[in-house]
Formats: sequence, C-alpha cells, structure tokens
Amino acid sequence: MVESTEDIPRETLTTEELRDAWPVLDAEERLAGFRLLPRDEAEDFYFELSSRGQASVLEGMAARERRAWLRLMPPDDVADLLMEFGLDERRELLTMLDDSTRREVNALLAYAEDEAGGLMNPRFARVRPEMTVEEAIRYLRRQAPSLETIYYVYVLDGEQRLLGVVSFRELLLAPGEKTVREVMHEDVITVPEAMDQEAVARIIAQHDILAVPVVDAERRVKGIVTVDDVVDVVETEATEDMQKIGGLAALDAPYLQTSLREMIRKRAGWLMVLLVGQMFTISALALYQERFETAAVLVLFLPMIISSGGNSGSQATTLVIRAMALGQVRLRDWWRILRRELASGLVLGLLLAGLGLTRIALGEMWFHEYGVHWFVLGSTVMLSLVAVVTLGTLIGALLPLVLRKLGFDPASASAPVVATMLDLSGVLIYFTLAQALLHGRLL
Amino acid sequence: MVESTEDIPRETLTTEELRDAWPVLDAEERLAGFRLLPRDEAEDFYFELSSRGQASVLEGMAARERRAWLRLMPPDDVADLLMEFGLDERRELLTMLDDSTRREVNALLAYAEDEAGGLMNPRFARVRPEMTVEEAIRYLRRQAPSLETIYYVYVLDGEQRLLGVVSFRELLLAPGEKTVREVMHEDVITVPEAMDQEAVARIIAQHDILAVPVVDAERRVKGIVTVDDVVDVVETEATEDMQKIGGLAALDAPYLQTSLREMIRKRAGWLMVLLVGQMFTISALALYQERFETAAVLVLFLPMIISSGGNSGSQATTLVIRAMALGQVRLRDWWRILRRELASGLVLGLLLAGLGLTRIALGEMWFHEYGVHWFVLGSTVMLSLVAVVTLGTLIGALLPLVLRKLGFDPASASAPVVATMLDLSGVLIYFTLAQALLHGRLL
Repeated sequence: MVESTEDIPRETLTTEELRDAWPVLDAEERLAGFRLLPRDEAEDFYFELSSRGQASVLEGMAARERRAWLRLMPPDDVADLLMEFGLDERRELLTMLDDSTRREVNALLAYAEDEAGGLMNPRFARVRPEMTVEEAIRYLRRQAPSLETIYYVYVLDGEQRLLGVVSFRELLLAPGEKTVREVMHEDVITVPEAMDQEAVARIIAQHDILAVPVVDAERRVKGIVTVDDVVDVVETEATEDMQKIGGLAALDAPYLQTSLREMIRKRAGWLMVLLVGQMFTISALALYQERFETAAVLVLFLPMIISSGGNSGSQATTLVIRAMALGQVRLRDWWRILRRELASGLVLGLLLAGLGLTRIALGEMWFHEYGVHWFVLGSTVMLSLVAVVTLGTLIGALLPLVLRKLGFDPASASAPVVATMLDLSGVLIYFTLAQALLHGRLL
Repeated sequence: MVESTEDIPRETLTTEELRDAWPVLDAEERLAGFRLLPRDEAEDFYFELSSRGQASVLEGMAARERRAWLRLMPPDDVADLLMEFGLDERRELLTMLDDSTRREVNALLAYAEDEAGGLMNPRFARVRPEMTVEEAIRYLRRQAPSLETIYYVYVLDGEQRLLGVVSFRELLLAPGEKTVREVMHEDVITVPEAMDQEAVARIIAQHDILAVPVVDAERRVKGIVTVDDVVDVVETEATEDMQKIGGLAALDAPYLQTSLREMIRKRAGWLMVLLVGQMFTISALALYQERFETAAVLVLFLPMIISSGGNSGSQATTLVIRAMALGQVRLRDWWRILRRELASGLVLGLLLAGLGLTRIALGEMWFHEYGVHWFVLGSTVMLSLVAVVTLGTLIGALLPLVLRKLGFDPASASAPVVATMLDLSGVLIYFTLAQALLHGRLL
C-alpha cells in the first residue's frame, strides 16, 4: 500500500481548539480530537488533563495504545487514574505496567485519595550522608530522568530514614569535596502519611517550599508531595467548601461535565431537608395565626425580619467556615469569636433597625400607612431586627464550631441551613415581641 | 562588663509557640516574641509571614535593624511589603535598599498588585543561546545565590527577548558541548504583564509548571511568577469569592486580625442594601394585605415558599460563580447553562412541591388544619413552590453571567442578593396564584 500524506487532506486541530471544545464533546469525539493533535502536543495535552479526562481518553483506546500512554505517567498519576476505573479494569490496567511501577502504584492505592500518602510521588531524589557533594551531583545527574523533581535532595540512612535535606542549588554552590552531611539541613519539615491533603497544602504554602517529604512513624521517607499537586488541592478544597456553604453536596466534576441527574441529586438533598425545616416555621406561624388575623399589618414586615437574620447569618457562617479552613481560627478561639460576633451582630442589628424605623416613619408621614400605633409597630419591628440579626450572627458563627467539635464538617453549616434556622427563630422572636408590645393596641 | 549567659535566664521561644500565639499578640508583643527566636529560626519565621505580618514586625524596629531585614528580601516581596506602608514611610524604606534592588522594586511598584507584573520576581536565570551547556551550567552556578529559582533557565537574545526555555535538569542531562540553542524548547508558555493574577495561577496550574515568564509586547522578559506565589493567589481569590458569595465585602486580613470596626464596615454595606431591597417586598405584600386578612392561612406558607426560592437560588449562584472562576464555564455557554438550570429547577421544584403537598394533606387528614379547601390551598402552595424554585434557580444561575457581561464581578450575585430577589418575586407569584386559584373559595 502506498501511503501519501498529500493525498489525504488530514484534518488538523490545535491544542487550544481542543481545550475549548473539550467540555462539550462526548468520549468518542474527545478521543478523535485527541488523535488529531501532533504527537508532542498530544503529550502536553494529556498531562494537562485531570484523571477523569485522561480516563475518558484511554477508555476508547486499544490495549496497546493504552499501555503506551500509561507507561508515560508517573506512579502517583497512574494511581489517581486507576481510581476512575472499576475494579476489573483497574486490575487489567495494572498488568500493563512494568513490575516496579506496579508495586509503587499498588502501594499508593492503599492510601485514601485525600491524604498525604495518596498525593505523594514515591520517586524522589535521595543520597547518602557520606557522599561528597561532587559525588552526589554526579549521582543525581544519573537519577534525574526517572524523577519528577531533583530540586530537593533527601539524605537517607541505610534504613531509608530521613537525616536531612539539601537543595540541588545548595549542592551546586557548595565545595565539591565536602560531604553531604556537612551541607545538609537537619530540621526538615515533614508530614505523616495520613495527614489530610488540605493540611499538607497549608504546610507547603506556609513554608514556601517546593515539596515536602511524607514519612512514616519510623521517619522513613515514603514519597514527596510537590507544590504543583498542592495548587490543585487548594482549588478543589475551596470549590467543595463553597458548594457546601451554598447549600448543596460538593460536585465530583466540573459544572458542565456533571450529568443533570447527578446535579439534581446533589442539590435535592439539602433542599428537601430545608423544606422539612420550614415546616416548623409553618407550625410556629400557626401559633400566631389569630394575631395576624387581627393585625395583618404585622405580616408585611415578616419577610424583611427573617431574611435579615438569614443574611447576617450567611455572612457570619461564611467568614467562620473559611477562616477555619485556612487555619486562621481554631476551636479554642470560640470565646473570642463569640464576643466579636455578638458585638458585630448588635451593631449591624442597630444599623438595620435604624434604617427600618426610618422607612416606617416615612411611610406613616407620607401615606399614613400604619395608623396611630405606627411608633409602637415600628419599635416592634426595630427590636425584632436587632434580636434576629444578632441571633443570626451568633448562630452563623457558632454552628460551624459546634459541628467541628462534634466531628462533622463545619461547611455543613451552610448559608441556607442558617437562614432556615433564622426563619423559625425570627417568627418566634417577632410575634413574641409583637404580642408583648402591641397588646391592647393593635392586638 | 562581664557577660555571662548563665546569669541571665533568657526567655526562649520556639517558632511553633510564636506562630500559635501570633494572631492574639499586638504589634509590640509580636516584635518582642520575634526577637526571642534563634537567628535562623527568626529568618524562616520572617519569610513565612504575610507582607502585613512582616510590616508589623518591621514597624517597631530601629532603622539599622529594619535595613538588615529589608536587604534579605527578594525585590517582589519588598514591593509587596512597601504596599503595607504609607507613602512617606515607603520612600524612607526605599532609601535603605541598594541601588539595583531599589530600581527593581520601583519598577514592580508600578504594577497593580493583582496582575502578573505585580506578582513577578525580576530576578530569574537567563543565558544566551550560543553558550554551550557546560558554560551555561558554570554560569548559572555563579548566578544562583541571587536568584529565587534556577530550575527554569530562560534563553534571551541581546534585547532581552525570549527565545526559549530549558530546565536546569535538562542542562544537566544534555551533552556539555551542545549549545543552549540546540537543547532549548522554543514553545514557551508566557503571560503578559497586565494579566490578572487569577488567570496566571490558572495557567501555571493547568500546565503543571513551576514558573512562567512575564513578557511585554516585544516579548522581553520582565520577570517570572513562581508556583509558590500562585498557591497564595489561588487561596486568596477563593476566600474573596466565598466572602462575596456569603454577602459581604472581601476582608483584607485574616478573620481575627480584622478590627471590629472594619468587620462591621465590610458587612453593613450589603446588609443595608438588602434591607432596602426587602422594602419592595413590604410594598408587594401590602398589595395583598386584604387577601391575607380574609385568608390568614395563606401567610403560614409564605416563609417556606420564599425561602425555598432563596435556597435553590443560592445553590445555583454558588455553582455558576465558582465554575466561572475556575474557567469551567464562559459567557458563551449561557444557553447551555440556562437549559440545564431550567431542567434542574423544574425537577427540584416538583420534588419540593410533592413534599409540601404531602405535609398539607397529612395536616388536613390528622388535624383538619386547613378546612374544606385544603386541596386547592395545597395546589396553590405546590404550584408556587415549582414556580419560585425554578425562578430561583434561573436567577441564581444567570445573574452572575449578566454581571460579568456588564463588566461587574460575578461574585456580587451573592446568595443573599439572590434570596432577596426571590423574597419579592416569591410574594408576587404566591399571591397571584392564590388570587387566581382560591377566588370564590378562601378569598
């Protein structure tokens, strides 16, 4: 068969075009597009993809092609990729790896995805303490092709226990005849295997380091977590927290890639729980039904009062959940948070009450909307606003702390949950105050 | 004077202890604590601090001590630090720098803090294309002490224009007699000076690179942004977005370090705007006052209906704002988003309506709460739920897109803003439906 590339007006595609179209393509189109990329661009593109994306490309490939792509990947990425497949396919893919990579991947699969062990790369630069600097540099130049990074070099004893660290740059700058032990730093920042990935990210960010070694109880180095993994972690964790604060279960995939069914499942749960919560509000209102049959004017201010509580609660819960996630506040700060939020809530409540009273006074002045009892009515609304906004602030701030204390995720104290709690308490506060203040007047 | 360290039982402090206490210390205590650290720990600790933290330490120092610390810092960090001081002090601090650093810092100060130019480090590893690999390595070993990173080496022509990039590792692996031009990559990922820092972060994260060069219109390299700067950016931007979605202005400092006054200022603005928004709801309710004087039972379901709209809107707005920030959806996807959210909203509304109707049916069955017209009443509530939840979903999803289209920050479509819009539209929908369906029965 004669092959001539000129005869076939081959479609071409740039990485840019494919990246743009990616979210709207189905699995088949993705693979077709991917195959249209020039080889080196295809490689770059493949490594940019998330594990899920890589899986969707591999799924359509024949075994031989799959194997070639798998073998290009470092073991930590392979482990993440395998998590996207079912158990049977996972086993089949594992057989495609060379023995040493398979062992590494199997070890990584034993860790939870969201802990240090699940994030680390088991291939890192290691030297012995008694090597000279020149020997170490020569040795690392040989090791380099198989490593993700050589920028931090870990100094290990015969049992793989961590003795110190030295950056490749420091090795370059040090006199060649010194020993590694003489130039290394002994105070190495390390993380344990089971540390949560968010905490690992915080440590790397806080110390401005490019990688951190993961050690077991005997201080043996199991792998390293590099800063580029951490960017993804920080972004993903923030997204999950945001979605939880927004009142839905965190999505597992980007917005447009989540199926409608999945999307509804993630949203319906909380909405239904909240609706059930609202039924308590219905019952609470029913207690006061006679009141607002007599004084329907009271109803006018109900949404304003309960929503203001919800809004101030939404602010407070967002602030505290995020501050906890960033390690800025801890459980033991609860008393300081309580005092701050009590003060904030009172001031904010007073500001809103002033604004609300002004509105009622103007309404009365211009339109005589509320009758002779307008001032008592205004005062009731005003006091309710102060109480509800203060309560909203307190509940919003303390609920995440209570949840953490009880071992739950603080981000479950979502804005809608706090708002729903405030709907109920707002109704109770408002009508209790109305009953006390307006008795014998409007009521 | 005889000095004996044994005579003075010097207080000591570990970095860990200081880091823990830091948020609750005032400026004086911070400096005192900082001075108790051993010299090398003090340096590590200083570089961990945010610019604000560094400023608070420097403020209490005498000129000589300040100068010493300033001179340890790379120019990009100095520039960030200076932004924490007033103009006069900034000028004074600038005089403490050596000439070349001062020039670099001045150049950096001309950029906005949140764009690539404001984030970059002007000191980076550069070589000429005609150097041999061995020459380049020797040259870089000499340059290394003054650079933040030597891991990417940029190849520049005589006019500082970017020709290519080669990693230090690749240089180490390449034959020493080859020229840099022969081993470099020409397809370098670059960013323009004015690119928003979030976009820079996304590019670094997407391509899994350790640094990206910042180039001007003539492709001259002005500096590099490294991945460790990006972790902070990603975290900060997520925090700001979260706070905006939570309905307050983004804080400039961590929660406990923000003064109460500032905290109230950041929160009061939106709360007051929202309260004014609620006044439209008051007016809307006033239109129907006669209705609920006749049928007070209608009021019972009002909070449930409007809050369900707010909750579904909060979910949708959080999803879309975050997806936009992550570059997962763009303006031109609006039609797909609209269709998805319309479908989601309808299904979610129907689910909630089913749940609501069940509650009313049971209430009627067991307690005869709602009288003979319970089914029509239930249907009114049910239809209102479907309409309000669907509308909430649509407003929540589309408002961020509209805001972006108009050039505003999509995150201003906060959950409380959407909820307040739904309070108003919920009232209108519910009472209009009630009027239509219950006319001649309850009304």
